[in-house]
Amino acid sequence: MSALNLYDTATREVGVFKPLIPGQVSMYVCGATVQSHPHIGHVRSAVNFDILRRWLTWTGYDVTFIRNVTDIDDKILHKAVHEKAPWWAVAMKYERIFTQAFASLNVLPPTYEPRATGHITQMIELMEKLIDNGAAYAPGNGDVYLEVRKLKRYLTLSGQKLDDLQPAADADETYKKDPRDFALWKAAKPGDPSWPTPWGAGRPGWHLECSAMAHAYLGEAFDIHGGGLDLVFPHHENEIAQSEAAGYKFANRWLHNAWVTQAGEKMSKSKGNLVFVSQLLREGVDAMVIRTALLRHHYRSDHMWHNSELEQARLLLDELRLCLSRPEVAPTDRIIDELIAALSEDLNTPAALSALQNWMTATNHGESGGDAGELSRAIDALLGIAI
Amino acid sequence: MSALNLYDTATREVGVFKPLIPGQVSMYVCGATVQSHPHIGHVRSAVNFDILRRWLTWTGYDVTFIRNVTDIDDKILHKAVHEKAPWWAVAMKYERIFTQAFASLNVLPPTYEPRATGHITQMIELMEKLIDNGAAYAPGNGDVYLEVRKLKRYLTLSGQKLDDLQPAADADETYKKDPRDFALWKAAKPGDPSWPTPWGAGRPGWHLECSAMAHAYLGEAFDIHGGGLDLVFPHHENEIAQSEAAGYKFANRWLHNAWVTQAGEKMSKSKGNLVFVSQLLREGVDAMVIRTALLRHHYRSDHMWHNSELEQARLLLDELRLCLSRPEVAPTDRIIDELIAALSEDLNTPAALSALQNWMTATNHGESGGDAGELSRAIDALLGIAI
Repeated sequence: MSALNLYDTATREVGVFKPLIPGQVSMYVCGATVQSHPHIGHVRSAVNFDILRRWLTWTGYDVTFIRNVTDIDDKILHKAVHEKAPWWAVAMKYERIFTQAFASLNVLPPTYEPRATGHITQMIELMEKLIDNGAAYAPGNGDVYLEVRKLKRYLTLSGQKLDDLQPAADADETYKKDPRDFALWKAAKPGDPSWPTPWGAGRPGWHLECSAMAHAYLGEAFDIHGGGLDLVFPHHENEIAQSEAAGYKFANRWLHNAWVTQAGEKMSKSKGNLVFVSQLLREGVDAMVIRTALLRHHYRSDHMWHNSELEQARLLLDELRLCLSRPEVAPTDRIIDELIAALSEDLNTPAALSALQNWMTATNHGESGGDAGELSRAIDALLGIAI
Repeated sequence: MSALNLYDTATREVGVFKPLIPGQVSMYVCGATVQSHPHIGHVRSAVNFDILRRWLTWTGYDVTFIRNVTDIDDKILHKAVHEKAPWWAVAMKYERIFTQAFASLNVLPPTYEPRATGHITQMIELMEKLIDNGAAYAPGNGDVYLEVRKLKRYLTLSGQKLDDLQPAADADETYKKDPRDFALWKAAKPGDPSWPTPWGAGRPGWHLECSAMAHAYLGEAFDIHGGGLDLVFPHHENEIAQSEAAGYKFANRWLHNAWVTQAGEKMSKSKGNLVFVSQLLREGVDAMVIRTALLRHHYRSDHMWHNSELEQARLLLDELRLCLSRPEVAPTDRIIDELIAALSEDLNTPAALSALQNWMTATNHGESGGDAGELSRAIDALLGIAI
């Protein structure tokens, strides 16, 4: 197997990836909160982690890829009120829409896709463990909190200091020992869905879900945890805090994709600058053009989205398809090696596309002796671009 | 809204369907145990209940349709050993294959599709209720049983007498008060997946799953419970027993589709006479031809499958598509009324196809004045046959 150099958010360095068990890779990636249509930012994350998975699979690793579905939170409950439907019907509807969008962009389906509300038992087990060993407390109102001052280490992923940390402005601190303690479990509000626990009925805190699901499917230690850069704090810090306090080694490395921005601002619902995948597809944009546009930017760079990118990606893809349809093409062995090599340098997709561009130039200049079918299959397998 | 005459397995009579809440229909249909590719028998059930849902939706009902996924059982565990994969990865793989098969056959996706292992909390709540009110007992070995002699009524759906009932030959009766008591929960075997309960770690009995999930999404009483005829006993009898013993009214009516047979034998894995949907699709059979072939038989009649049926269905569908592509077609208002009327008589799909045949004959004889587009939409909406 080739060496893979990967950036690790925890160490802030690019280093050689070594799996815990030779030949096997276990990955957990934070998936969608299913309450709206996926925008370009959502699919950027999915496509980038798909590239990692494809490289690992191509080079011979047996990959277990878990991506969760967050199917309960305030936004889903608000959407349910708005759509006059049960929260679970809303969550299922958007889960399906996300699945379709990912499939249309040729993102491989996860080995398992757990739903948060399907893992209440595992969350209760984790909370029991944390309360038993003194890391968490149930103040009696139905909430359960993690006591951050008790942690051996905290905030190492984001490199913050606990004393500098400001509690959220809207946080209810009535029952907290320290304003920075965070909720593992939230007591039921009247009319909201809830599940029973030894400490009262309620629903899971977002952070708890991922610790419980990662543990359920990948065990106490696994290779890679991924997600968008906006999840580093508080979500991933709190996942680490809960899991380490329970005695688990948890993720061995952390990978985060940068944002998609528009006119310098992060693409997000609150900014009102979202570009939806479904809308682009409805307008007739080829899904492979969207995927190619995303791959033109390295996953750790902010991607300043502009619709003109779609045109550039389309030109690239058109030329690629034309070249690959020719009876005679430039040699393909070297270019396949170049694709693997580009991706092995921290998933350098722009370099992979450049290598393809050079190969097309050679083909256009009359070089021959390649196998277009083999290269098409390699492009699909490694970059997920279906020719 | 039109009147709908439906057979009820419980009363053995066709009678007018009346929903519990005017204008709304709540349905629970037993879905797949996700451990193999779907065969014609599986999709027959899905297509038939889809016809009911489509009729209800067309005539103005707001339908909530729950179809579960049984994602843990002995067969899945065996398959996991065979495929050298975790049980959950096997379950997810086949869940996806079922979803694709249903979608290809134009079966509408359920409002919610709960997985059994995602509802352990709800199962524990139900068992606690049953133990508290004396209907169930935990003998101390980790199993939990329903005590059938305590039930006010039992076996009314299948019309059997408790005293005539023979316990399963391979049943372990060590911990049972009565050999006919059935397991709500099964103590963990070494190496098998398990979930914690107040009575020990284990996994759910099949029957318990559906009672818990139906209650979670449809409440204490709902309109229609459906499934294949082979589920009447023991699965549906035991669902009724558990739910009624918990004080729930449960299903107001029961609908069962008959079997698909081949050469006089039920199509089943153990008989080795399965016809797989994926295989037919791979061989190039149009999915709408498969759907049409299924609709040529009334859901309560055994369907003696023969591949020549596909040819007959293809001829019917070809003629239909040809007729609907003509600039002039026979009047369509009456035929749409006839489709609705045929289906309102206990989902008489053969009569609906005959009505279409008559309309095609009229078109072939030069009758005109119809709107082919409107009829195409009605055929898709009511029969799920996409023209």
